Amino acid sequence: MSVSLFSSPVYADLFADEELARLLSDDSDVAHFIVFEQALAVVQGRLGIIPAIAAAEIETKLAHARVDPARLAPGTQAAGVPVPALVTELRELVGQDAGAWLHWGATSQDVMDTAMMMQAKAVFGILSARLAKLLDTLQRQSNRHAGVLMAGRTRSQVSTPITLGYRIAQWAHPLIDAEAALPELRHGALKVQFGGASGTNNAIYPDGPAVSKALSQELGLADSPSWHVNRTPLLKISSWLVQLTAALSKMAQDLVLLGRSDIGEVTSGAGGGSSTMPQKSNPVQAETIQVLHQLSITAEHGLIIAANPAEERDGAKWPLEWHCLPQLFLCTGRSLQHAQALAESLTPRPDGLSGTIDANPAIMAEAASFALAKAGISRAVAKETVAAASTDNIPFTEALSNRSSVEINWPETLDPITAIRPAQEMAKQIFSRRQHQSTD
Amino acid sequence: MSVSLFSSPVYADLFADEELARLLSDDSDVAHFIVFEQALAVVQGRLGIIPAIAAAEIETKLAHARVDPARLAPGTQAAGVPVPALVTELRELVGQDAGAWLHWGATSQDVMDTAMMMQAKAVFGILSARLAKLLDTLQRQSNRHAGVLMAGRTRSQVSTPITLGYRIAQWAHPLIDAEAALPELRHGALKVQFGGASGTNNAIYPDGPAVSKALSQELGLADSPSWHVNRTPLLKISSWLVQLTAALSKMAQDLVLLGRSDIGEVTSGAGGGSSTMPQKSNPVQAETIQVLHQLSITAEHGLIIAANPAEERDGAKWPLEWHCLPQLFLCTGRSLQHAQALAESLTPRPDGLSGTIDANPAIMAEAASFALAKAGISRAVAKETVAAASTDNIPFTEALSNRSSVEINWPETLDPITAIRPAQEMAKQIFSRRQHQSTD
Amino acid sequence: MSVSLFSSPVYADLFADEELARLLSDDSDVAHFIVFEQALAVVQGRLGIIPAIAAAEIETKLAHARVDPARLAPGTQAAGVPVPALVTELRELVGQDAGAWLHWGATSQDVMDTAMMMQAKAVFGILSARLAKLLDTLQRQSNRHAGVLMAGRTRSQVSTPITLGYRIAQWAHPLIDAEAALPELRHGALKVQFGGASGTNNAIYPDGPAVSKALSQELGLADSPSWHVNRTPLLKISSWLVQLTAALSKMAQDLVLLGRSDIGEVTSGAGGGSSTMPQKSNPVQAETIQVLHQLSITAEHGLIIAANPAEERDGAKWPLEWHCLPQLFLCTGRSLQHAQALAESLTPRPDGLSGTIDANPAIMAEAASFALAKAGISRAVAKETVAAASTDNIPFTEALSNRSSVEINWPETLDPITAIRPAQEMAKQIFSRRQHQSTD
Amino acid sequence: MSVSLFSSPVYADLFADEELARLLSDDSDVAHFIVFEQALAVVQGRLGIIPAIAAAEIETKLAHARVDPARLAPGTQAAGVPVPALVTELRELVGQDAGAWLHWGATSQDVMDTAMMMQAKAVFGILSARLAKLLDTLQRQSNRHAGVLMAGRTRSQVSTPITLGYRIAQWAHPLIDAEAALPELRHGALKVQFGGASGTNNAIYPDGPAVSKALSQELGLADSPSWHVNRTPLLKISSWLVQLTAALSKMAQDLVLLGRSDIGEVTSGAGGGSSTMPQKSNPVQAETIQVLHQLSITAEHGLIIAANPAEERDGAKWPLEWHCLPQLFLCTGRSLQHAQALAESLTPRPDGLSGTIDANPAIMAEAASFALAKAGISRAVAKETVAAASTDNIPFTEALSNRSSVEINWPETLDPITAIRPAQEMAKQIFSRRQHQSTD
Repeated sequence: MSVSLFSSPVYADLFADEELARLLSDDSDVAHFIVFEQALAVVQGRLGIIPAIAAAEIETKLAHARVDPARLAPGTQAAGVPVPALVTELRELVGQDAGAWLHWGATSQDVMDTAMMMQAKAVFGILSARLAKLLDTLQRQSNRHAGVLMAGRTRSQVSTPITLGYRIAQWAHPLIDAEAALPELRHGALKVQFGGASGTNNAIYPDGPAVSKALSQELGLADSPSWHVNRTPLLKISSWLVQLTAALSKMAQDLVLLGRSDIGEVTSGAGGGSSTMPQKSNPVQAETIQVLHQLSITAEHGLIIAANPAEERDGAKWPLEWHCLPQLFLCTGRSLQHAQALAESLTPRPDGLSGTIDANPAIMAEAASFALAKAGISRAVAKETVAAASTDNIPFTEALSNRSSVEINWPETLDPITAIRPAQEMAKQIFSRRQHQSTD
Repeated sequence: MSVSLFSSPVYADLFADEELARLLSDDSDVAHFIVFEQALAVVQGRLGIIPAIAAAEIETKLAHARVDPARLAPGTQAAGVPVPALVTELRELVGQDAGAWLHWGATSQDVMDTAMMMQAKAVFGILSARLAKLLDTLQRQSNRHAGVLMAGRTRSQVSTPITLGYRIAQWAHPLIDAEAALPELRHGALKVQFGGASGTNNAIYPDGPAVSKALSQELGLADSPSWHVNRTPLLKISSWLVQLTAALSKMAQDLVLLGRSDIGEVTSGAGGGSSTMPQKSNPVQAETIQVLHQLSITAEHGLIIAANPAEERDGAKWPLEWHCLPQLFLCTGRSLQHAQALAESLTPRPDGLSGTIDANPAIMAEAASFALAKAGISRAVAKETVAAASTDNIPFTEALSNRSSVEINWPETLDPITAIRPAQEMAKQIFSRRQHQSTD
Repeated sequence: MSVSLFSSPVYADLFADEELARLLSDDSDVAHFIVFEQALAVVQGRLGIIPAIAAAEIETKLAHARVDPARLAPGTQAAGVPVPALVTELRELVGQDAGAWLHWGATSQDVMDTAMMMQAKAVFGILSARLAKLLDTLQRQSNRHAGVLMAGRTRSQVSTPITLGYRIAQWAHPLIDAEAALPELRHGALKVQFGGASGTNNAIYPDGPAVSKALSQELGLADSPSWHVNRTPLLKISSWLVQLTAALSKMAQDLVLLGRSDIGEVTSGAGGGSSTMPQKSNPVQAETIQVLHQLSITAEHGLIIAANPAEERDGAKWPLEWHCLPQLFLCTGRSLQHAQALAESLTPRPDGLSGTIDANPAIMAEAASFALAKAGISRAVAKETVAAASTDNIPFTEALSNRSSVEINWPETLDPITAIRPAQEMAKQIFSRRQHQSTD
Repeated sequence: MSVSLFSSPVYADLFADEELARLLSDDSDVAHFIVFEQALAVVQGRLGIIPAIAAAEIETKLAHARVDPARLAPGTQAAGVPVPALVTELRELVGQDAGAWLHWGATSQDVMDTAMMMQAKAVFGILSARLAKLLDTLQRQSNRHAGVLMAGRTRSQVSTPITLGYRIAQWAHPLIDAEAALPELRHGALKVQFGGASGTNNAIYPDGPAVSKALSQELGLADSPSWHVNRTPLLKISSWLVQLTAALSKMAQDLVLLGRSDIGEVTSGAGGGSSTMPQKSNPVQAETIQVLHQLSITAEHGLIIAANPAEERDGAKWPLEWHCLPQLFLCTGRSLQHAQALAESLTPRPDGLSGTIDANPAIMAEAASFALAKAGISRAVAKETVAAASTDNIPFTEALSNRSSVEINWPETLDPITAIRPAQEMAKQIFSRRQHQSTD
C-alpha cells in the first residue's frame, strides 16, 4: 500500500530499477528541460534568429544551472505544466537581456516532449544493452541444453517431446523480434518536438523548420514536423515495451510451471522460502516479472487513452503520458534484470525431466501414428491402434508390436531421443534471425 | 517522467494527496503490520491460546516499536513479502521467550490483508467526509442556481433548455448513489483475514474461528472465513472508487466544455494561464480530475487482473493489489479535492448562458411540437411545421404563428422560462435520495 | 476470425448461450421497445395525460406488433438510434389519431434504457438460477470430498495439506458473495428511465414523476429520477458480472492445474483429445471459462469508458453499452454453464492426490514447527531443526525424532489426516454464509 | 443489446463492414483452412514428402470442397478447435488412400494461424486502399482550406490562429505514419505457421523447414520459424490498428467540437436529427468512429492478454485472438469508411470561423508579445503590457498602441492572416512525408 511499488523502500529489491530511476525523476526532467532551452538558444544564435551574445550568455549560464523541482510546484499547479515556472527561474538566472531570448518561439510542450524523447533515448540505450545481454545468455543456455529432452505441453497436457534448448529458443523468439525492431523504433519514434503555441511555429516564421532541424542534430533526435497531437511515437514505443514484457512474462510463467513442487524439471532464480515451510522455493523473481507485465499492460493502456488529444493540445490526456511512460519503462527495465537472473541461473533437473517422459510413454503416440501411416496403414486405423496401445497395461512398444500388422522397429521409432535433432534445428533457425549475434 | 505523478515534487500540488499519502506509505504499512501482530498476541493471550505473560510482553514491546522499512528490503526480495523479515525483527525485539508466540498461527497474507483493510478503513473515513462535503456543496449550488437557464445539449447539439441547477444535480446523482452504497461497502468489504498457511487455520486448530472473531472486534473490521483467494472485497472497493472518479470526471468534462473560450457559460477553478496568451484560462483542475479518472481505470483493471489467484496463494497476482489499490485511493482522494474546489468556485456567466439560448431559438422546438400536438395537429404535420418555422428568417414565435393553423399563445409557449420548474423538481427529486442531507 | 465468437456457428457449443441469446438480439430489442411504448400509453391513458381512447388503441395495436429490425437500419444510421424509425413505423400502425399520442413525452433514451433494464432483469433471472444451481452443486461436492486430502499450494509450491472439499468451498466463496449481493443489485440497478429530451420531463410537466412511477410498476422495475447521465446502474451490474467471471475463472484455472498430465489429482469436464495424441485430455471447458473471463474484463472496461457521458447525452459513449453489456452477459452466462458441467463432473484421482502428499513429506513441516514451539523450543531452533530434518535422507518422522530434544509423538503429529478437520470447518463456515441454502 | 454491434441488422449501416465481414466469417475461416490443407499437400507432393498421386488427389478434391461450418460445432466443442473435425470431413472427401496424407505433419494451430494470416493479408489490402484514399482526400481538403483561418485551441482555450488546412494535416499526420509503417508490417507480421504438434516439426523431420518455405511461397506469406508461442506478429498488427483508430478518433472528436451548435465552424457528415428538435444535427458518424476506437482499445487489450501463452500452446489464451482480432479489423475498417465520408463532406462555415476569431482578439496576444520582445521590451514587461491591453475595453490594436512605448505597426502585426503562411508550410511538411502521394 505504498504510493508506488517502484518507489517503495520495502520493495526496492524487487521493483526498483536504480539505473532507470535516475533518468525518470523530477531532477532528470528539469535537467533535460534546461538542456533543451540551452540547445534552443545555441542553435537560434547560430542561425541568427536571436542575438549571438544572448545565445552565448544563455549557453554559459544554463551549463551548470540547477533548479530544485519542488520550487516549480506552485507554478505547475497554476499552469498544469512546470515549464512556465522554470522559464521564469531561468530568465532570472540569465538576466533580463539574454532572458528575453530564452525559450524563443517555444511552447511548453516543445520542451517537455523533447526532454521526454531525450530521456527515452537514454532509457533505450540501457534497455537495448540488457536485451542484448539477455539474448546472449538465452542463446548460450539454449545451446547448452540443446540435448536435454523435455515433455512438450500443449493446453496443459503432455504432447510430444521437445528439448529444454528449444523451449529457451522460443522464449528468445519474441525478444529477437524486439531487438530487430529497435533500430527502426529509435529512428522513427525518438523525435524532436518544435512547433510553438499551436504547432505551426508562426511566432518565428519562417525560421521554424531550420530551428527544428538544428535542434534535432544538436540533441541527437530525429527531425519531424510538429507532432504535438500525433502521439504515434509514444504508441510505437509503448507497443514495443509491452511486446517485451509479454515475452518475459511467458518465460517467467513457464519457469514457474517447471519449478512447481509437483513438476520440478528446471530450477531458476533465488527462490524465497517460508519460515515454517522449508520445502518451499517461492519463484519470487518469475512472479515479479509477471506482475510487472500486468502493470505494463495498464500503463500501455494509459498511453493509448492519451493518443487522441483534442484540438491543438489536450490537458485531460497529456499528463497520462507523464505517469504511464516512466512506469512502462520501469516495468520493462526491471523485468529484463529479473529475466537475466533467471536465464543465468536456470538449471535442468534431470530426474524431473526424465521422470515426466517415463511416466508418459504416450508422449510418443504421434510418432507411432506417423510410422503406421508411412507403412500404409490408414489414418483412422492408425489412430485407433495407437489409442488402444496407449491404454494397454504393458510397455507401449510392446503393445504396439502386438497390435500393428506391419513390421516397424518400435523401440527405435519410439525413442524420445529422436525429438532432439528437430528441436535443435528449429532453435538454431530461431537464433539465426538475430542480426548481431553474440560472439562468445 | 517521474516514477509516479503521485510522488513527484513538481506535480505535488496537482496530484499529491498528503492526507492519504500518510496512510499509503511504507511506514504506514509497517506500523499496521505491527498493530496486527500486537492485536493477535493480545487476543490469543486473552483466549488462552498463547501464554498470558508472552502476550503481555508482546503487547508492551510492540506498543512503541518502530522498524525502518528499508531494513526489510532484502528479506522482501527473498520471500516476496516483507512479513518474514519483520517478524524476525520483532522477535528479536520482544525476546526469545515471548518471541516464540509472536505471529502464532498467522501467515504473511493474514498480516498484509488485514493491515490493508485497516488502512482502507481509514482511507474510507477520509473519502466519505470529502464526499459528504462535496455533496453538500453541490446541493447548495444546485439550489442557488435552480433558476439559471442553460441550453441542454444532447450529442453535442443544443436540445431543450435546462437549468444550471439541474445539471449540477445530475453531477451529484452518481455521487449520491456512491454515498448510499458506502455503509454496505464498509460492512461487507472491510474484513479481517486470518487463515494461516493455506487458509484453514490448521496449525492452531480448533482455535482459528475464535481468534478471527476476536481480532475483528479488536481491529474494528468485519469477521469472515479466510478470503485469501476470494478477492471480492477488493473488487467491491475498486468498483466503488471507479464509480466515484467516473462521476467526478463527468462533472469535470462538463465544466471544461462550459468554460471553453467559445462557450463561456460557467467559470470554475483557478484557471492557469500562459506566459504569452493572457486570454487563456486553462481548466487545470478539471483536466486533472479527468486524468485521475483514467488512471483509476487502469488501477481498477490491475485489481481485476489480481482477482482470480491460483490455488491457495498466487505470487504473480497478489502484488498487483499493493500497487493498484493505493493508486486508486489516491486518484479518488485527489479528485474529490479538486472537485470540491470546482464545486465551490463555479460561477455562471449570465451573458454566455443567455447568449446561447438567444442564438438558438429552436431550443424551444420540442415545446412547439407538443403544443401543436395537444392542439390536435398530427405529429407529422407538427414536425414539418416546426422544422419549417425554424428555418424562416424571422423570429421563431412569429414564424410559428404564420405557419400554424391553430391558435396558440406562442410567446408564452416558447418562453424558455417554462423549463425552470420541471428542472427544479427533477433536481429536488435527485437530492431527496440522499439519506443524510446537509443541514446548512 | 468470425465477427464474434458468440455468434459463430463453428464455436456455438463453446461460446453460444442460446437461452440468453434470445434475450440479447435485435428482435428482442425491438420487442422490448414496443412493450415500453405500449406501457407508456397505458399508464398515460390511466393517468389522464393522453386520451383514454388513444391509449386503448395503442395498447391493442401494439399487443401483436412485429417490426423487422432490418427495416430500422436506415433510420438508425441517420439518428444514431433506432427509436425514431420505430416510432414512425408504430405511428403508421396505430393510425394518425392515436399515433399522435404514442411516445408522448419520451425520448429515445427512455425507450432504450428501460428496454435494456427489462432485458437485464430477465437475464438476471436466468443467471441467478444458474448461480444457485452451481452453488448447490459445489456445496454438495465440497461435502462429498470433505475428507479427501490434497496438497495445498501457495506461490506454486506445496505448502500444507488441505482437502479437496476446502478448495471447492473457496471456489464457492466469491460466488456466495455474489449471490448475497443479488437482491440489492436487482433492487438498486434495474430502474425505469423516463426523462424526456434533456432529462427533466419538461415537455409533459408536471406529469413526469407520476408517469415514471406508474411505468416502473407496470414494467416491474425500480422508479428513479432520470439517470440518463448517471450510469451507476450499469457499473454496478458490470462489476457484479466480472466478480462472477473472475470467481469462475479461478475455479477453472485450478482445475486446469489439477488436471495437468503431470499433476493428475482431479479430473473434470469432457476433455477433448487430439487425433494423434490419445493421451491428451484438453481441458476445453475450463479454458473457455478463462477466455470468457478475459473477454468479460474487456467488456466491463467498455462500460466504464461509457460511464462519464458529456452533458445531457453522449453519442460517443452510449453505444459502447449496447455492445459491451450483452457481451458481458453472454460471458457470464456461458461461464456459469461450463462451470456447472465442471462442478458436476469433477472427480478426485486418489493416486494422484496421495502421490503428491507422499512425495512431499515436508508438507507437514509447519505442523512440526508448531509442535516443537509448543514444546518450548525457540522458533529459530525449531525452524532449523525442521529444515535440517526435511533434507535428511530418511523418513521425516524419523529424522525429527533423531533431531529434536523433546518427546513428541511424531507419527501422529505429522499425519496429514490432522488437516481434514480444520479444512472441513472452514468449508462449513464459508457455506454457512449462504442465506438460502440447498435443501438436497 | 444485440450479441454484437457488428452483426446487428439494426445497426448495420453504422457498424457493419460488408467487405470485411466476408473475410471475417465462419465460411471464410473454413475456406482458408481448406486452402491451407490443399497447399500443404501440393508442396509436400512437389517436395516428394507425400506421394505425388495423393497430393494430386487432394489438390483436385479440395479445389471445390465446401464444408458447412455448423457441422464442425460438435468437434470444436470436444477439441477446442475446429480443425480435427474438418480434417475428418476432408479425409472422407478425398478418400482413404489420399486422405492418409492430408494434413501431413501439421497441427491445428498451423492451419488456423496460417489461415488467419491469409485473411489478415486480404484485410490489409482493403484497409490500405481505404487509408490511401482517405489520405488523398485529406491532402486535397488540406490544400483547399489552406487559407481558411481558424482559432487554434489548446487545453480548450483559444490559443493562436491556425488554418483549417493545418488542422486537417495534423489529422493526416498519424495516418501518414501508419501508411509508412505498412510495408514493414506486412512483411514482418504476415507469416506462415508450420511447426507440428509442439512446434519442432519432429514428425516429418528433416522436412519441416522446406515445407514451411514452400508453403510461404505458395500462400504469399513470409516464412518463419514456428511462432506458435511468439505472438509478436499479432501485437504488431493490433498496435498498428489501434494507432489508426486513435488517429481517426482524434479527427472525429475535433469534428464533433467544430460542429457543436455553439461553435459551428465546420460541418461534416450526414447529421442525424431528432423528431421534435429540427435544429439538431447529431454527428452520428463522428461519434461512431469514437465508439469504434474505444472498442478497438478493448479488442487490442484482448490480444495483449493472449500474447504470453504458457508452454507450447495455451488454450486459455489462444481463443481470445479469434474474437478480438476480427473485431479490431472491423473497428478499423468501418472507422476508415466513416472517416472518408467525413473527410469528403467537411465544409467550413466562414461565419462561424471568423466569428470566433473576431470574438477573441487576444488570439493575437502571442504575436504582440513577440513583436514587443523583438523591439527590445523585456519579456516581463511585454507580458504585462499585452495582458493589460487584452482587458482594455477598446480594440486590441488600439490598446497596444496606447500602452507600448515602441513603434510597431500593430494592425499588420495583429492581422491573423499572418498565421496562414506558417500553417501552410507546416501542413506541406507533414504531407511531404507521404511516400506515395496522390496524383490528383
